[in-house]
Amino acid sequence: MAMATLARSVLVTGSNRGIGLELVRQLAASPQPPQHIFATCRDATGPRGKTLQELAARHPNIKLIQLDTVDLPSIRGAVQAVETHLEGQGLNLLINNAGVGSQATLQSVDAQEMLATFAVNVVGPLQVAKEFLPLLEKAAKDAGTEGLSCSRAAIINVSSKVGSIGLCLGVLEAPMYPYRASKAAQNMVTRCLAAELRDKGILCAAIHPGWVKTDMGTEQAPMTVERSMQGILEVLGILSQETCGAFLDWEGNHLPW
Amino acid sequence: MAMATLARSVLVTGSNRGIGLELVRQLAASPQPPQHIFATCRDATGPRGKTLQELAARHPNIKLIQLDTVDLPSIRGAVQAVETHLEGQGLNLLINNAGVGSQATLQSVDAQEMLATFAVNVVGPLQVAKEFLPLLEKAAKDAGTEGLSCSRAAIINVSSKVGSIGLCLGVLEAPMYPYRASKAAQNMVTRCLAAELRDKGILCAAIHPGWVKTDMGTEQAPMTVERSMQGILEVLGILSQETCGAFLDWEGNHLPW
Repeated sequence: MAMATLARSVLVTGSNRGIGLELVRQLAASPQPPQHIFATCRDATGPRGKTLQELAARHPNIKLIQLDTVDLPSIRGAVQAVETHLEGQGLNLLINNAGVGSQATLQSVDAQEMLATFAVNVVGPLQVAKEFLPLLEKAAKDAGTEGLSCSRAAIINVSSKVGSIGLCLGVLEAPMYPYRASKAAQNMVTRCLAAELRDKGILCAAIHPGWVKTDMGTEQAPMTVERSMQGILEVLGILSQETCGAFLDWEGNHLPW
Repeated sequence: MAMATLARSVLVTGSNRGIGLELVRQLAASPQPPQHIFATCRDATGPRGKTLQELAARHPNIKLIQLDTVDLPSIRGAVQAVETHLEGQGLNLLINNAGVGSQATLQSVDAQEMLATFAVNVVGPLQVAKEFLPLLEKAAKDAGTEGLSCSRAAIINVSSKVGSIGLCLGVLEAPMYPYRASKAAQNMVTRCLAAELRDKGILCAAIHPGWVKTDMGTEQAPMTVERSMQGILEVLGILSQETCGAFLDWEGNHLPW
């Protein structure tokens, strides 16, 4: 499906592999790509960022930015770098994709794994949203439009159906205590941000990418990351005030909290 | 309302004040009180446990036990102490009441407060449940009954309507990011435990006590802690397999996740 520009500027966290990498790849390959694609990861210049570096070498609109979502000075450094690139413009679309999995069961779970998973999957997205808020507000103000959309200003948190409390063990048998608890908490953060930021013209939503073949999803997953990201980019393109604060899957279906 | 014995043995965390203290008080004052009321708190013998000590002095079935829910050796010490008192019996009812509030807004929130709130409100109840599991399983096995109930074996997590993602800012205007996120995560833990433990004969549920006049709830709250705890003890008395894994308020109404 041919797409209009999703947004003039997009930032994706955890973009060196899996879902984040494919998002950046498809954004760059779209017929009307964003002017700025800020591809961030912890190790932008190191060996773990190699595929991303090669992609950026072919697309001058991709800017590699170092960003460790659990390190506040790193987040603030990224905000400064992004601001410099934007030359007075705001940031339209922030995609909080960086996250960690955890399969821990009741037997194996411990406090350290609970807290580490919570730090990356909940505190990270919240802190990144908070620090980029001035740039998102600027985009919302400068858009010259009413209503909410990803082309104006938006925060998209990559969540998981496994984090649906209502579905709970209806999705996969494994309890995965830290991962499920962290994604439920992240969904609450998304809802709070949505309620708080909608009057500022910033849309917030949680997206479930499906179970995809990535390092985290494993080869067992039924869906390719390409197909999932095609779906997500279509869904992002049609988000509006009606879907602000929603929990949607890659096909646009609403999921229960 | 006159009540039959809720359970032969009950353990309440955070029982030195507020909701926990009133639960212990009403349990001890009931016409057919539990044989063992394990009233636990961080500072069982110190000045912060004074009211509880006075209560225990009047009720020999109240046993004060030191338990810091975020300190694993402390939890394990409490398990040993409880096991000694139970003299071969299991523990019927664990009430995870200990928790902390946090009013932090998007402007004031930081990683440290998010993690500290998550540790007490999510990791604490999970670790306490995990460590007391053998005693709860013993009670479930020895009960000689089928079905789920608080008199057989149960884990009750004191939650909050403010932790409902579906209601979100419909309940109070204040975002309270750390508290809301932690209670949503705690609800997920409750659901996972409910699904995992029901086949072992252990019931799990989340209870919203209402907004009550306590140190945490402040004097602004519309309801006395006495009234809320009367309601909760009635609700606990009628929990069954149908309400296993549910999120109920002090009047027995179902809340959305």
